[in-house]
Amino acid sequence: MIRLQDVARRAGVSVSTVSSVINGRTERMGAENLRRVQEAIAVLGYQPNRAARFLKTGQTPLLGLLVPSISNPIYGSLAREVEIIAQEEYAYRVLVGNTYRDPQKEMSFIDDLISHGIRGVIIVSPLLEQGHFKEAIRRGLVAVSYDRRSLPGTRLEVDYVSMDNAEAARIAVNHLIERGHRHLAFITAAGKTVSRMDKIDGFRAATAHLGKKSEIIEGNSSLGYGDGEMAELGRTLAKRIAARQNRPTGIVAMNDMMAIGLILGFQKLGLRVPDDISVVGIDDMFLSAVATPGITSVRLPLKEMARTMVSRIVFRLENPQAKTEEFSFVPRLIVRDSVADRASD
Amino acid sequence: MIRLQDVARRAGVSVSTVSSVINGRTERMGAENLRRVQEAIAVLGYQPNRAARFLKTGQTPLLGLLVPSISNPIYGSLAREVEIIAQEEYAYRVLVGNTYRDPQKEMSFIDDLISHGIRGVIIVSPLLEQGHFKEAIRRGLVAVSYDRRSLPGTRLEVDYVSMDNAEAARIAVNHLIERGHRHLAFITAAGKTVSRMDKIDGFRAATAHLGKKSEIIEGNSSLGYGDGEMAELGRTLAKRIAARQNRPTGIVAMNDMMAIGLILGFQKLGLRVPDDISVVGIDDMFLSAVATPGITSVRLPLKEMARTMVSRIVFRLENPQAKTEEFSFVPRLIVRDSVADRASD
Repeated sequence: MIRLQDVARRAGVSVSTVSSVINGRTERMGAENLRRVQEAIAVLGYQPNRAARFLKTGQTPLLGLLVPSISNPIYGSLAREVEIIAQEEYAYRVLVGNTYRDPQKEMSFIDDLISHGIRGVIIVSPLLEQGHFKEAIRRGLVAVSYDRRSLPGTRLEVDYVSMDNAEAARIAVNHLIERGHRHLAFITAAGKTVSRMDKIDGFRAATAHLGKKSEIIEGNSSLGYGDGEMAELGRTLAKRIAARQNRPTGIVAMNDMMAIGLILGFQKLGLRVPDDISVVGIDDMFLSAVATPGITSVRLPLKEMARTMVSRIVFRLENPQAKTEEFSFVPRLIVRDSVADRASD
Repeated sequence: MIRLQDVARRAGVSVSTVSSVINGRTERMGAENLRRVQEAIAVLGYQPNRAARFLKTGQTPLLGLLVPSISNPIYGSLAREVEIIAQEEYAYRVLVGNTYRDPQKEMSFIDDLISHGIRGVIIVSPLLEQGHFKEAIRRGLVAVSYDRRSLPGTRLEVDYVSMDNAEAARIAVNHLIERGHRHLAFITAAGKTVSRMDKIDGFRAATAHLGKKSEIIEGNSSLGYGDGEMAELGRTLAKRIAARQNRPTGIVAMNDMMAIGLILGFQKLGLRVPDDISVVGIDDMFLSAVATPGITSVRLPLKEMARTMVSRIVFRLENPQAKTEEFSFVPRLIVRDSVADRASD
């Protein structure tokens, strides 16, 4: 059986460096060390504690993944990354629960996990109120919260793994400003979530100097919660924006599905993207690359976030005294064809 | 606790009719009876055997769902429907395994299910060869195979639940012929699967009278197996078709993701859909409704298929002597804007 020490020796680093990589604490690590450790893990086929665990119980362990809806492509992609890493690197299987933003369904899923002896769960819940998880955590649930940083006063004893959403909005704004845009809008769905509020804050801060030429445009989907909701909302907002005389020239969409709906809506009304109006999305879904035009977007580092979440759960299950931590991932711009240069007005 | 008899009394039908609905045997049932049973189940909150099972073990039971990739939107949607029905109607939870068309990964997932005492699994495997499931089935695995009918000589002891794929292709062809198209092509990925072969057979039969003006156009994605594969293949085939002098006027795509890629590819090359060339998809994904133009497609009855699969697994787990059955679902055309009338050449 391959041990931590073997990986450290092969990579030429300390055991604690290997442990940091396995547990996702790579922020302050040199790129070269990270690469060597990852290579050693891959070459040696190191699987932390797999054999020990399997011999004890005869079962592969399970972890839970609670998502609003697995058929939403962004959560489908997240589930895929989580399952790959859980399975291939830690020999865990993943139990998925769809909860449709319903706290009752969230609790019922957690109860079922516990009844199966599953104590590790990744929680993807856009609900602002999270108090209903407290009791389960007190009883020993080891949870990671995805895509929401901790909020003062409501912090749970969970690891928080999120992208810097304010920074994502700033990156999108700065790209539009660099290309000459001076009248910008952020489009969003009504209903507060931590990540939406952070994106709006980031947008506001980065466009404060534009005064009235910085707007938040908010809409309500006529569909209930479901697969088509975001795209439909984008189309609705396209109509509203197209009907105006004084339109923004550059738009940041809350997520790529909304950007896709927005662009399709503009095209239907005869507005050309990017010639007449520029659009930047956030997430970088695979559809953004195949859309026409290809959608410039701010990439959510999904794979890295999935790796951190799975490794943290496994680490804390094995080290019950370990403190929870908060991880913030840096997004980056992926330039495609949905933004045009604009001479300053 | 609500019993089968209570549902039958409220619906005004026999107990065996209720049992048929619960076990997905609704083909020869009148629509009114079906509606009344479904309503009675909903009103009374009937959950078959839930309480009995839960009292015995203290655990909600699990079933496995083996898919090539959960991030492929069509499998994401299937997983959502399966999870909803399993959870809300049978109080089962769903364990998902991504297998990337790899028989080793398929077997490893089945082994893990068995190690957890899970005996029910929905298998979504496009692989032609399925012999590797035989041993697990002999040992008591209760499986439903999705989207592939049984093939003579290779039938497994599983329930087969599929759409009539030959009929789906015929429906698409007939729509194009009714709109005046006389030069048709079916676009497909290289690599045989049961459903692809059935679609090709259906296309060939329905276009036999067109002689040389009926073509199968096959391509290989340059991407490996993954989220973007089908859309990318559609774009590649668009280039090949656009470059030809004598183009088909109507195209049936193997699935909607390929249709989306094809349409985006044509648009990029200046060919208008449907004005210059008409396209019909198969699946009816949610993206087909939001695309521009909206994509005319042949709908896979996903919800009904999911209900049948879950109910059959639960039924056979409770009735180990029950015979396996084969279910074929009838697809139907959803008309949107990707087909134009064409004066016969």
